[in-house]
Amino acid sequence: VQASPSPLLTDLYQLTMLRGYYRLGLHRRETCFDLFFRRQPFGGGYAVAAGLEDALSFVEQLCFAEEDLAYLATLDLFDDDFLRHLRDFRFAGDVWAVGEGEFVFPQEPLLRVHAALEEAQLIETALLNIVNFQTLIATKAARVCREAGRDNVIEFGLRRAQGPDGGMSASRAAFIGGCAATSNVEAGRCWDIPVRGTHAHSWVLAFPDELAAFRAFAEVYPKNCTLLVDTFDTLRSGVPNAIRVGLEMKKRGERLAAIRLDSGDSAHLAREARRLLDKAGLTGVRILCSGDLDEYAIRELKRRGAPIDLFGVGTRLVTAHDDPALSGVYKLAAMRDAAGEWSATMKLSDEDAKSTLPGVKQVWRRFDEAGMMAGDTIELDAGDDSSGHFTSRISHSAFPLLQAAMKDGRATAPWPPLADLRARLKRNFEGLPESVARLHEPATYDVALGPRLREEIERLRKTDR
Amino acid sequence: VQASPSPLLTDLYQLTMLRGYYRLGLHRRETCFDLFFRRQPFGGGYAVAAGLEDALSFVEQLCFAEEDLAYLATLDLFDDDFLRHLRDFRFAGDVWAVGEGEFVFPQEPLLRVHAALEEAQLIETALLNIVNFQTLIATKAARVCREAGRDNVIEFGLRRAQGPDGGMSASRAAFIGGCAATSNVEAGRCWDIPVRGTHAHSWVLAFPDELAAFRAFAEVYPKNCTLLVDTFDTLRSGVPNAIRVGLEMKKRGERLAAIRLDSGDSAHLAREARRLLDKAGLTGVRILCSGDLDEYAIRELKRRGAPIDLFGVGTRLVTAHDDPALSGVYKLAAMRDAAGEWSATMKLSDEDAKSTLPGVKQVWRRFDEAGMMAGDTIELDAGDDSSGHFTSRISHSAFPLLQAAMKDGRATAPWPPLADLRARLKRNFEGLPESVARLHEPATYDVALGPRLREEIERLRKTDR
Repeated sequence: VQASPSPLLTDLYQLTMLRGYYRLGLHRRETCFDLFFRRQPFGGGYAVAAGLEDALSFVEQLCFAEEDLAYLATLDLFDDDFLRHLRDFRFAGDVWAVGEGEFVFPQEPLLRVHAALEEAQLIETALLNIVNFQTLIATKAARVCREAGRDNVIEFGLRRAQGPDGGMSASRAAFIGGCAATSNVEAGRCWDIPVRGTHAHSWVLAFPDELAAFRAFAEVYPKNCTLLVDTFDTLRSGVPNAIRVGLEMKKRGERLAAIRLDSGDSAHLAREARRLLDKAGLTGVRILCSGDLDEYAIRELKRRGAPIDLFGVGTRLVTAHDDPALSGVYKLAAMRDAAGEWSATMKLSDEDAKSTLPGVKQVWRRFDEAGMMAGDTIELDAGDDSSGHFTSRISHSAFPLLQAAMKDGRATAPWPPLADLRARLKRNFEGLPESVARLHEPATYDVALGPRLREEIERLRKTDR
Repeated sequence: VQASPSPLLTDLYQLTMLRGYYRLGLHRRETCFDLFFRRQPFGGGYAVAAGLEDALSFVEQLCFAEEDLAYLATLDLFDDDFLRHLRDFRFAGDVWAVGEGEFVFPQEPLLRVHAALEEAQLIETALLNIVNFQTLIATKAARVCREAGRDNVIEFGLRRAQGPDGGMSASRAAFIGGCAATSNVEAGRCWDIPVRGTHAHSWVLAFPDELAAFRAFAEVYPKNCTLLVDTFDTLRSGVPNAIRVGLEMKKRGERLAAIRLDSGDSAHLAREARRLLDKAGLTGVRILCSGDLDEYAIRELKRRGAPIDLFGVGTRLVTAHDDPALSGVYKLAAMRDAAGEWSATMKLSDEDAKSTLPGVKQVWRRFDEAGMMAGDTIELDAGDDSSGHFTSRISHSAFPLLQAAMKDGRATAPWPPLADLRARLKRNFEGLPESVARLHEPATYDVALGPRLREEIERLRKTDR
C-alpha cells in the first residue's frame, strides 16, 4: 500500500551512475553504505527510528518491468546493453538496521547496507524518502504523546498531510510514536490501528438546528456519541445543546461519550464546558480538544489547567509542522578496491557538518546500573573483514543497535505488528533520561566515537586526495 | 499512480456521518460544498491552484470493494444494511473547479461540489488531502522560480519528501509552478516532466581519487557531464580537477556541461569557480547550485551577484518547509431542505476567521484596461436554482474562475497535459501586479463579496439557531 514498488521512484542520477559503474566494470564491487541524519529534529534531544519495514519491503520487491525499461530508453541516456542488464536487477545484499521504535541520535547509522555498488546505490532515494519521513513523524508523535499523557492522542491529519501516503505513512509512524488511534480508515485497515472519529460541522448544518443535529447523532450512535460543539457558539449554543442531549441519553440509559472543542480559547472553553457538564450531573462526559495542536500547545493547555481528556492532533503532527524534513543522508562508508582490499571511505566536504564517518560501523548503546541510557558509542565493527556479520561487544552493559534485518535480499524475520513497535518505544522511554526527553533545552545525549574509529578518521584526513 | 483509489482513504467520521444520513433518510438530499483555504501560504500575496486532476480522478474511481466492506464490518459501527448500500456507492455529482495554474486567494472556492449529501461528504478528505498539498507546492514553486528566473530551477526533492507520493505529488505540482525539470524518474514517466541529474558524492568516493572519478564520468557521459565538486574541497580540489577534465574534453571536441556546488558559501564559491573556469577558457561551463535553497536563499545569492546558472531545489520546496500545510477546508454551503427548498448554510464558529460563506457561489476575476488583475468578486451564482449550471457575468471585463470540471460523476473533458498548465501559469503571471507578486510585504489582492452574497450573510447572521 505504502511504497509504490516502481523502481523509477528514484533520482535520475542513481540510474546514470549505475550505467557509469556498469560501463566501467565497477558495478559489482562490494560496498557498505550508511543511512544517518545529521541534526536532531524539532530542537529535541532524541529521535525515534521508523519506516524500516516499508523501506525494506520496497527493496525486496525492486525490479524493472518492461514498461520501466521502455521509458528509460526514451531518455537518450541509456544504451540497450545497460537496459538489458537492468532487466535482471535484484537487490541481493544484506541490511543491518536499528529497529523501529528505538531512539536514535545524529551521526548514528540507522541502516547499514552491504551490497554490490549498483544495488546499494539504486535504493538510496527510496530508503531516504521512507525512513526520513517516518522517523520524523514517529519522533514528533513521541513528543506530542509525552506531553498529552499516554493513550490520550488521536491522529487526525489525513486531510492536511502531504499527499495520500504522506497521510498513510504519517498514520503508521504516529502510531509507533504513541498515538492511540487514527481517523485514517485505510491506515486502520493496513496496520490494525484503532480508528476513531466524531462528526463534522456539516452534520450540524445539515439539520434545521444544532439541537436536532445532536439528537440525530445520539440516535444513530448511542454507544459512540461525541458531539462537536463549536458550529455556532460553543458555550451559549453547543455545550447547552450537548448537555440537553446528554441528559436525554441518560434518561434512556445511554451515555454521551464526549464533546469536542475545535476553535476558540480551548483552555477557557474546556474549563467552562467541564463546569456546565458537571453541574448538569454529566461528570462522565469527556472533553476532546482539536485544532492546531502540537506538543507546545498541549503543554500550555495543561499548564493552564484545562480539563481536557483527549487530544485530536492533525496538521502539526503529520507534517511535522515546525521542522518538516529530517536531514537524513546515505553515504558510502567502505568499498573493496580494485585489488579486492576492503577500504574505508570518507567525504570531507567544505563544511565539517557535512563530512561522514568511514568504515563498517556498529552503534553500541550503554546503560548505567539503574538501566538508564548512559550514552552510545559508534565504533568500527570487529567483523568488518568482508561481510560485517560479526560484532564484538564493547562492554557488558552495552548492546548493539544495528541488527541483521535483511540477508541476501530477503528480510531475516517476519515484521513485528505495529503494536509491538509502539510498546517497544513505551518501554524505551523508561530508560531515557528526563534531561534528554524534555521539550525545553534538552541535554545532548552522549554519542562517542570509539578509539578504532577515531584512528581511522585521522588516517583518512591525512591521506592526500 | 498518485492517489490510491481506496475509498477508505478517508476520515472515519465521513463514514459514520454517512451511515447517520442513510439511517435518517437524508443521504440523497442535494447539497453544495465548497473547498477553500483561509490564509495565504508563506505570507505571500497569491496561491496557485493545483491537484485538480488527481483529486477528481480519485472521485471518478471511488467505489467499495468487498474487502473494504469486510474491514468496515469489523469496526462494530456499521450495520449490514448500510454496508450493502455502500456496495453501490458511486459519485454521480457535478464539480465546478478553478483550473490548475490559476491564481487563487483566501475564501474563494477552488472546488464547488454539487451532489447528494452522502456523495459530497465522503469525498471530503481525499479532495482536501490532494488539493491542499499540490496547491501548496505549486505556490512554493512559483515563488522559487520567480526569484530564480524562468527555466532555471530543477526540483530535487524526492529523498526528503513526505513519503513516496509526497514526492510524486510535489514533483507534479512543482512543474506546474514553474520548475523546468525533476530528478524524480517516476514523475518524469507519469507526467512527461523532463528529468535531470548529475552524480552523487558516492561516485567520487568509488574511485581512487577525485580526478579519476571526474574523468570516468566524462568518459561515460560526454554529452551530459555535470561534475559535483565539493566532495573534498571545492576550490582547491573540485574545481581544479573539473577544469582539468573540462580542458581534456575540449581537446576531444566535447564539452563539460556544468559543475555543481552543494555546500559552503555558495555565492563566494560560485564567483571563484566562475573566475577559475573563465581563466581556463571554459566560459561555456555552467554553474549549478544546490543545498538548502528556497526563494529567499536564491534572492540573497542573486543580490550578492553569484554567477549561478541553475538552481537545484529540494527539501524546502517539496515540503513547503516554512509553511508545510495549506489551511484548506471543505464546507457545506447550501442544501435542499425537507420541503425541497434550496437553502444556504453558514458556519459561524467562535472565531470569525473560521466562519464560512453561504450559498452557491461563483468567483469573478476582474481585469483593468491594461489586462492586469484588478480584483476578484465572490458572488452568489445566478444559476443557483438547483444545478448551479448557469452563471451571470458581473461585468464585461470579468471572467468566472469556477468552470464545469465534472458532470454526473465524469470529467467534462480530457485533462490537459501538465506542460499546458505550466504555460497557463506563466501567462497568468503577466497579469499579476508586481505589488501582489513580490516576496517582501506583498499587497493584499482585493477579494470582494458581491452585494447579493453580503445580503445573504446578513440574513443568516440574524437567524437564530
